[in-house]
Amino acid sequence: MWSNKRARELKERAEKVIPNGMYGHESTRLLPEEFPQFFHRAEGARLWDADGNSYIDYVCAYGPNLFGHGYAPIEEAARRQQALGDTMTGPSEIMVDLAEAFVAQVQHADWAMFCKNGTDATTMAMTLSRAHRGRKIILYATGTYHGAAPWCTPRPAGIIPEDRAAIVYYDYNDPQSLEDAFRQYDGQIAGVFATPIRHEVFVDNYEPSLEYAQTARRLCDENDALLIVDDVRAGFRLARGCSWEPLGVLPDLACFGKCIANGYPISAVLGSDKARGAAKEIFVTGSFWFSATPMAAAIETLKQIRTTDYLERTRASGDRLRAGLEAQAAAHGFSLRQTGPSVMPQMLFDDDPDFRVGYAWTVECLKRGSYIHPYHNQFISYAHDDAVIDETLAATDLAFEALKGRMGSLEPHPVLMQLLSAKAA
Amino acid sequence: MWSNKRARELKERAEKVIPNGMYGHESTRLLPEEFPQFFHRAEGARLWDADGNSYIDYVCAYGPNLFGHGYAPIEEAARRQQALGDTMTGPSEIMVDLAEAFVAQVQHADWAMFCKNGTDATTMAMTLSRAHRGRKIILYATGTYHGAAPWCTPRPAGIIPEDRAAIVYYDYNDPQSLEDAFRQYDGQIAGVFATPIRHEVFVDNYEPSLEYAQTARRLCDENDALLIVDDVRAGFRLARGCSWEPLGVLPDLACFGKCIANGYPISAVLGSDKARGAAKEIFVTGSFWFSATPMAAAIETLKQIRTTDYLERTRASGDRLRAGLEAQAAAHGFSLRQTGPSVMPQMLFDDDPDFRVGYAWTVECLKRGSYIHPYHNQFISYAHDDAVIDETLAATDLAFEALKGRMGSLEPHPVLMQLLSAKAA
Repeated sequence: MWSNKRARELKERAEKVIPNGMYGHESTRLLPEEFPQFFHRAEGARLWDADGNSYIDYVCAYGPNLFGHGYAPIEEAARRQQALGDTMTGPSEIMVDLAEAFVAQVQHADWAMFCKNGTDATTMAMTLSRAHRGRKIILYATGTYHGAAPWCTPRPAGIIPEDRAAIVYYDYNDPQSLEDAFRQYDGQIAGVFATPIRHEVFVDNYEPSLEYAQTARRLCDENDALLIVDDVRAGFRLARGCSWEPLGVLPDLACFGKCIANGYPISAVLGSDKARGAAKEIFVTGSFWFSATPMAAAIETLKQIRTTDYLERTRASGDRLRAGLEAQAAAHGFSLRQTGPSVMPQMLFDDDPDFRVGYAWTVECLKRGSYIHPYHNQFISYAHDDAVIDETLAATDLAFEALKGRMGSLEPHPVLMQLLSAKAA
Repeated sequence: MWSNKRARELKERAEKVIPNGMYGHESTRLLPEEFPQFFHRAEGARLWDADGNSYIDYVCAYGPNLFGHGYAPIEEAARRQQALGDTMTGPSEIMVDLAEAFVAQVQHADWAMFCKNGTDATTMAMTLSRAHRGRKIILYATGTYHGAAPWCTPRPAGIIPEDRAAIVYYDYNDPQSLEDAFRQYDGQIAGVFATPIRHEVFVDNYEPSLEYAQTARRLCDENDALLIVDDVRAGFRLARGCSWEPLGVLPDLACFGKCIANGYPISAVLGSDKARGAAKEIFVTGSFWFSATPMAAAIETLKQIRTTDYLERTRASGDRLRAGLEAQAAAHGFSLRQTGPSVMPQMLFDDDPDFRVGYAWTVECLKRGSYIHPYHNQFISYAHDDAVIDETLAATDLAFEALKGRMGSLEPHPVLMQLLSAKAA
């Protein structure tokens, strides 16, 4: 029987010693109150919260979990390296192996630089673009997420206009908007950021048009600016290389992170020779960037990416979930919009402007053992096999049924309402 | 017999796939060429490079290694947590335990926020200070290191004036310079950064005057600005709390990192209630900030800090090394300046403007099994017991002797010379 007694006690303790009880993208402040803030353990496709409730995990740590929590080959590689040495007085020799593996794996990459956070990688790419030809302007698609540093974090507190004085916003997927920006800032544009797909919260997700990607590439070539694909969230989810490789559009810089070591902390900037000169000039570093254990995990993750059918299997599982949910929603009289690639599915309800229907449905799913996110795109891991998907589908069917019975009495989420009304004002 | 055959091969391979073959603070580009760039393993106070040479490690991963590489109680705590879950879809419940432990351990701390890099913590402190009263100006002591983001990185490539438009520089340890800045920017100052000691590269290190610390505190109080002690490098090396606690000066925010989990990747901002409101407003996050394994390691590290004599023993070992080196230098006719606290010793030679003497001496030490840094402050770990220090002193004595024989034929380091002449120009 689902319960949240301990979850409530933990939240009370946390409120005293952590601002808001928690912060950042894993805060549950905008989630239904039933969503657990703290977890106890994870294995394969499953999570257990502090009360002992178990869930099939469709959030996968917001991306890092590609092969399943505690996936044995990667855990084993990490354990071997940890016994040798992790944070030493310089990198392990395996840093060279890892850089070589990335260069072999990702088409445009002639070199690699490693860091920790996704934001480290995007900030490094920005700095590197500016160093490339000594220019200032960075093109940034309005509303896309590229991290949580002052130049890009989505909330205004503590941010000053100077932080973004040289950021120019364009419209994602709109080639004309890129053309206009290059005309207006002729000779001043250092680099162009693009997420490989549009994967923002609270809205439908979608893939870019080929024309948009090709226009970005052409304008960067014509103007000696650098094209940056921010593959932190989508990297290796959509392809065994950079996510725009299937489009035939190669960036100068790609930012990777999240799942490249299946949960071990490491991110990367992968660059072409064109950008190597600038990469040699900038000074970027971090206390733990050169630790060996995450590098060993990344080497093994790349091997698993090369040698398993993870890409085909996660796609098949994503498709299976999508088809099942579509049929169930129709049968129960709901219109569920499932957007984005099926391996990174976004699920939103039609006619649900304040998200109360989606919130209620995910609570019903949660109480039946599937952790489905009401506003963020999700992730399918290699551990989400047919049996796992079918177990979820059994739960979601009951969740739709339960939702029907609650439709007259749903309330919107209070904190979310504050946010939405602040945004509208 | 010391050799570097494999080290040279690794450097050649690295040059192809990593810009400059390596980057950041662990690059050996400014070190004597004999210094290994890549390591194979580490244990206790010792490191082994890729050629199998072993060294007593006085750099301790540039700070993280406080109790010794692979220190059993901390490794065991991390291993237990890793088996349960590391990077899950939310933090583990032990995040609350860790925040409580920090609040109990560090005098000014009413709350904690965790992150990965030291730079994450200092950038968060800057953002938080600006959010506190909606002001812009950050006071920053000229030449101090607070990280490698655009607002603070020490090299200019890729940095634009806007990145630092609201940073105002003052002189470390100069109360008048602080007074002047507060007068000039009356009502505009958000926060004041201070390293707890002056621990910069290539120069003598020293502790601040009480007057400086007290003036910083008073001016922040009078002007409702936040005092930020950047304890990333020195935290828990000088005290069992914030490094200014022994002075009786408490900050509003302290940045911790490096050794707080003995090498596992985690950093923190510890704040007082005064700063809690701003902390609730900012949006900061990272893919791996909430991973549980480094938190388990940090909980155990704090326990070791509370329950062992690590502080007294590292001081005694630092003093023993300092006294031994002083006697040896005098006996061999050298004047070695040993500055900073003995647990974070900086070693520079008198009459050595281009550092050729210090460089040659550290090479002689290196070849005799002690990894001593020629321009960066060093660190003594709990694993550096009397026997380890005495083993080093036997090597350093021979190194001084060898140095004497080479004094007529020393050359300066070519890359360092480029840097020094660029700086002078």
